[in-house]
Amino acid sequence: MIASLLLLIAAPVPKDDAERAIRKLLDDQSQAWNKRDLEGFMAGYWKSPELTFTSGGEQTRGWQQTLERYRKRYQGEGKEMGKLTFSDVQVQMLGPDSAYVRGRFLLERSKDKPTGLFTLIVRRLPEGWRIVHDHTSS
Amino acid sequence: MIASLLLLIAAPVPKDDAERAIRKLLDDQSQAWNKRDLEGFMAGYWKSPELTFTSGGEQTRGWQQTLERYRKRYQGEGKEMGKLTFSDVQVQMLGPDSAYVRGRFLLERSKDKPTGLFTLIVRRLPEGWRIVHDHTSS
Repeated sequence: MIASLLLLIAAPVPKDDAERAIRKLLDDQSQAWNKRDLEGFMAGYWKSPELTFTSGGEQTRGWQQTLERYRKRYQGEGKEMGKLTFSDVQVQMLGPDSAYVRGRFLLERSKDKPTGLFTLIVRRLPEGWRIVHDHTSS
Repeated sequence: MIASLLLLIAAPVPKDDAERAIRKLLDDQSQAWNKRDLEGFMAGYWKSPELTFTSGGEQTRGWQQTLERYRKRYQGEGKEMGKLTFSDVQVQMLGPDSAYVRGRFLLERSKDKPTGLFTLIVRRLPEGWRIVHDHTSS
């Protein structure tokens, strides 16, 4: 009885499964980006007014605001989305339901190739693994 | 018996105590900085070759390497440490032993006033709460 209770509490989600799910989240994001599907890209983010996105010395708060920021910067007049690649991705679990991810992004466009590093906080929510905070810098 | 076992497993570290300890870590860091005590400042970081520090598009790996980076940038010939202040600090617990911290730094020096945003991953280790990853950008 106690043993089964303990098992229930420990809720054994294998670490590798969590890491695989988190890496899939990133793969899905870059695939969506490369189809110019910003809403699909944004599906990896927590759909909440509490999502935070830090970049270029500024913090954007909220899923909708983050989507709009991406639209302006990458789908506005004369803007180009380019080809997005993530590399050097390291997933570090902090518990069964949370992790942080470090990695590099590269955006290949006709006129430039911006690159930089990101730190993501990801949480396992009822709807699945989601980025709850993103700090990206170049 | 089961109830006491469960209590033991839950290990009730009040959330507020954890947040208080994490905020004290940051206060201790800025106090050490403002006494020009870089080793004291670095006491808030995980003393491990696995510590990572991301800033300016580069990642520094290791406690010692991070200390050396600070020494070069702030205690080298003609450099000034200035007065460091953290503001808008938000601590978000991810479990009893981990959290992420968002905030702003301001460095007031005689010639300039650099400012920017940081994201810290902090973990409760046997030696206490420590920053295990820092992503700072301006």
